[in-house]
Amino acid sequence: MRICVLGGDGYCGWATALYLSRKGHTVSIVDNFLRRTWDHEIGAQTLTPIQPLPDRLRVWQELTGETIEFHCGDVTDYEFLASVLDSFRPDAVIHFAEQRAAPYSMIDRKHAVFTQVNNVVGTLNLLFAIHELRPDCHVIKLGTMGEYGTPNIDIEEGYIRIEHNGRSDVLPFPKQPGSFYHLSKVHDSHNMMFACKIWGLRATDLNQGVVYGTMTDEVALDEALINRFDYDEIFGTVLNRFCVQAAAGHPLTVYGKGGQTRGFLDIRDTVRCIELACLNPANPGECRVFNQFTEQFSVLDLARMVQTAAKDMGLPVEIDHLPDPRVESEEHYYNAKHSKLVDLGLRPHKLSESLLDSLMNIAMKYQDRIDRSLFLPQVEWRNSRNQRRREGAAISLSKSAR
Amino acid sequence: MRICVLGGDGYCGWATALYLSRKGHTVSIVDNFLRRTWDHEIGAQTLTPIQPLPDRLRVWQELTGETIEFHCGDVTDYEFLASVLDSFRPDAVIHFAEQRAAPYSMIDRKHAVFTQVNNVVGTLNLLFAIHELRPDCHVIKLGTMGEYGTPNIDIEEGYIRIEHNGRSDVLPFPKQPGSFYHLSKVHDSHNMMFACKIWGLRATDLNQGVVYGTMTDEVALDEALINRFDYDEIFGTVLNRFCVQAAAGHPLTVYGKGGQTRGFLDIRDTVRCIELACLNPANPGECRVFNQFTEQFSVLDLARMVQTAAKDMGLPVEIDHLPDPRVESEEHYYNAKHSKLVDLGLRPHKLSESLLDSLMNIAMKYQDRIDRSLFLPQVEWRNSRNQRRREGAAISLSKSAR
Repeated sequence: MRICVLGGDGYCGWATALYLSRKGHTVSIVDNFLRRTWDHEIGAQTLTPIQPLPDRLRVWQELTGETIEFHCGDVTDYEFLASVLDSFRPDAVIHFAEQRAAPYSMIDRKHAVFTQVNNVVGTLNLLFAIHELRPDCHVIKLGTMGEYGTPNIDIEEGYIRIEHNGRSDVLPFPKQPGSFYHLSKVHDSHNMMFACKIWGLRATDLNQGVVYGTMTDEVALDEALINRFDYDEIFGTVLNRFCVQAAAGHPLTVYGKGGQTRGFLDIRDTVRCIELACLNPANPGECRVFNQFTEQFSVLDLARMVQTAAKDMGLPVEIDHLPDPRVESEEHYYNAKHSKLVDLGLRPHKLSESLLDSLMNIAMKYQDRIDRSLFLPQVEWRNSRNQRRREGAAISLSKSAR
Repeated sequence: MRICVLGGDGYCGWATALYLSRKGHTVSIVDNFLRRTWDHEIGAQTLTPIQPLPDRLRVWQELTGETIEFHCGDVTDYEFLASVLDSFRPDAVIHFAEQRAAPYSMIDRKHAVFTQVNNVVGTLNLLFAIHELRPDCHVIKLGTMGEYGTPNIDIEEGYIRIEHNGRSDVLPFPKQPGSFYHLSKVHDSHNMMFACKIWGLRATDLNQGVVYGTMTDEVALDEALINRFDYDEIFGTVLNRFCVQAAAGHPLTVYGKGGQTRGFLDIRDTVRCIELACLNPANPGECRVFNQFTEQFSVLDLARMVQTAAKDMGLPVEIDHLPDPRVESEEHYYNAKHSKLVDLGLRPHKLSESLLDSLMNIAMKYQDRIDRSLFLPQVEWRNSRNQRRREGAAISLSKSAR
């Protein structure tokens, strides 16, 4: 298949592009390097020393003989996006090209507005471009399990049958997103559902859980292909951050009681789920929703697992309960369905001690690059103007936001 | 109370500002005249000859002794909006300042993007400004009944108790909006619900039905105070359009079978509902939703009522069933709750023959201003690029959109 990966230089996008390329698909990457720019803005960098995209692509070509096309540009620029679709003529487009961090969207008004405008306009552009240029192309959009929030009922995959006053209908599952970022994904989901209805587009909305891990078979082929590994309080996903904290001998930073339960998955399952969605496209007019995660854990569960694995490696570490900077339930019911991707053939990589060991080994390998000042939360949901301070240097984020 | 009306030069905003002023509230209007600009863009004008806002306000002051403050600017400009809240110090802000026409949002990509960005950013700005400057101020936001779509179950007021797999929760009512405009309102609703949760704002989301009528007691005081009366296919609400069509002897333009059932209300009830919301503010942290309409009708019901009233006035008129330019059910279940505003004291003005007579009399009075080329739908939901053509002149809308 011809598959276009929007945001293919990012954490999930890069792993996905390589995986699909190695599986024999013709892959093109679209990226504008905003994710790398945000590292400069917030004064953080990935633990792993990622290489510039042209170098990554050259090494990939040398190692595998496979060429991945690259288009540098912004999906909020319609003419650019349309020109890519027109020239590459994809069978599927994977849309990762969004601002994807809840804390980033909660820094202040400008970051909230940027996140929503960037994500909503990029997705609208994609839907219009597909309709106008490649109406049979399958749109695979990354959503998030965070769109659902934590309702006191089972979470279904996108839609729920509701019985009410003696009548019944299948309706979109009610959404209770917990940040301006998560809200942007809810907006996208509604827009995409509507585009499928009026134009007959084929779409799959992948409500992904929290991703952990960094190694995939492809990335492991060469150091130059190494993937991002974010551990900072803005972009770092929680399990990755805990492993780096453990390797650095820093207490694991659990927010509040740590009863916040979420769906999680290994990045090796992310790439496989994307391929399964590609290989089994939605029907014309269908906006299909898959909950893309493999296991549920509470944050405190994860901290304890990391603590145990670290102890076994001779790295004793404490668990700190910090005041929760977010506005969320610290204890709640959580039971989210996630059978549709398994039905299509997903064989989950469950979270294991060996995976935790490997994450900590990566952290140990790059420990010279660990910046401990990135561990503690500095963005507080209840404030509408947050400043991030790093060792005496105040970084004014408002100025640098678009 | 001190009440700020965002979008106070528009159809509902103008009637509301005058009503509240006459009721003894201190009123300020914020507007940037975009609504008047769109008339130029689409080549339409209100049936009634509305006066420039400064003239309207001067006449109001002369007639009643009441002064309405005016601030010219765009709510998507945060510094402007914040300066208004800072100087006027409102107890309540009524937010009408959005692009409010479904067909306008469906013209093409630029109009869709403009509608969503304009509406979402304006509302985000308002929420941030209230939190930062007037945290106790009550936000009263105009939503639309169109957020719900036409589910096969009763529509509740904003929230629904769902029983599922032996558990139960009260969740936001699932939304199935039918245009990029209606989607923008759904996005706003989610954003506002979240802002109330994290910052403890007080908000009321008024999911308004289709408004008809143009006369309120205040507007009727002087010809210079006359309100908008839109009958064109973009901004004209359906009952107003039918009355003008009947007065012009033009067939009533029913889309499809006309079984599309919606909630409707008289503009005299709109202004009263707004006042009721002001006088009974939401609690801190509460995002309250009222369904603001008084009666349900199908489009064909309305056409028949207008046809009968017109016949009695000696104006025989046909009903035309045009292909539906929208993607919507032409026959469906519809039962929407709307008791909360009645509980607060609303006494509805039900649709009556005398009201229809008065609407047609207005249309007769201004019949020289009727432009019959504005009656027929030119924006087709299934197209992503619509051009409006008027008597040989092609109006390219894409160029003029922001």
